[in-house]
Amino acid sequence: MALGTDYAQQDCSIARALEVVGERWSMLIVRDAFYGVSRFNDFLVHLDIPRAVLTARLRALVEAGVLRKEQYQYSPARYGYHLTEAGLELWLPIHALSRWGEKHASDLGPRTIFTHDTCGTRLSPDSHCVPCGVRVTPEQVIMRQAPGARPNPRTDPVAVALSRPHRLLTPVTDPGPEPAAHH
Amino acid sequence: MALGTDYAQQDCSIARALEVVGERWSMLIVRDAFYGVSRFNDFLVHLDIPRAVLTARLRALVEAGVLRKEQYQYSPARYGYHLTEAGLELWLPIHALSRWGEKHASDLGPRTIFTHDTCGTRLSPDSHCVPCGVRVTPEQVIMRQAPGARPNPRTDPVAVALSRPHRLLTPVTDPGPEPAAHH
Repeated sequence: MALGTDYAQQDCSIARALEVVGERWSMLIVRDAFYGVSRFNDFLVHLDIPRAVLTARLRALVEAGVLRKEQYQYSPARYGYHLTEAGLELWLPIHALSRWGEKHASDLGPRTIFTHDTCGTRLSPDSHCVPCGVRVTPEQVIMRQAPGARPNPRTDPVAVALSRPHRLLTPVTDPGPEPAAHH
Repeated sequence: MALGTDYAQQDCSIARALEVVGERWSMLIVRDAFYGVSRFNDFLVHLDIPRAVLTARLRALVEAGVLRKEQYQYSPARYGYHLTEAGLELWLPIHALSRWGEKHASDLGPRTIFTHDTCGTRLSPDSHCVPCGVRVTPEQVIMRQAPGARPNPRTDPVAVALSRPHRLLTPVTDPGPEPAAHH
């Protein structure tokens, strides 16, 4: 019996959310967008997934209103993918899920930590800064490597750039020449 | 190229979390466990998924330490599935995801709302009670139908029982005679 791609019989907001971000790789694409990845080729090298899969997921996330597609170059045409207001609100569940994964699905402890830009304190799992007594939105977050973190097994340029302290939602690689491959 | 069942090249807590709860239906099984569903047959009728899929997902969630399996009857043997401490910590991401889905992936508004047991206030998306100024854990949550909510299209006994105000993590159906089918 085919499982289908939706949860039509489940009139439930979680099921609706999963129909948008529950596809394999979709949540990691959104994670990368929070990291400031926006160009097709940067998603491709950092996620290391088949080009056709990335194309399909990006299209679905644009259709669902999570990402918007903006043209940043005209000859040849090139596009960037950016989080919409709706996409930005995925920070809360995605960050909470990542903290759960670090605590309960991994032996290795954090590699990346997310800190409040004004005071440097690590966010709580519910995205608050406890000393400042405020909720923190992604625009206020600096990602950095955890002290004593194990090295990143990935060596692509995006991973290397992200190994340095980096404000979320800001560009992650230098806008330099890009490969000729189109999407 | 097979996508595989893991994100081995992604050394990332989100990817680790998704390997545990990202399988189709897993997050809805965990949602049902928060609702107080524990018996195999109750998951089966409420989720309306093939028996073999439910069996596989429950086994995986037990192996991952999200659910524990307890025998509650000996002749014939029957088992209940309950959230572990690790499983209870999934409340934060799952509730946040459901609020995102209600706001951005559905036209219909909430059907179920989650309230602070002491004051009746709806939880914020980050699971705080704003008037009380506290984080709320799932043991402190009453689920109820939203005012003016559309009717539940499902008519199984679990859905009917859940249409009344109900404290999370408490049993959802009467412990009555069960069908003869084994799992």
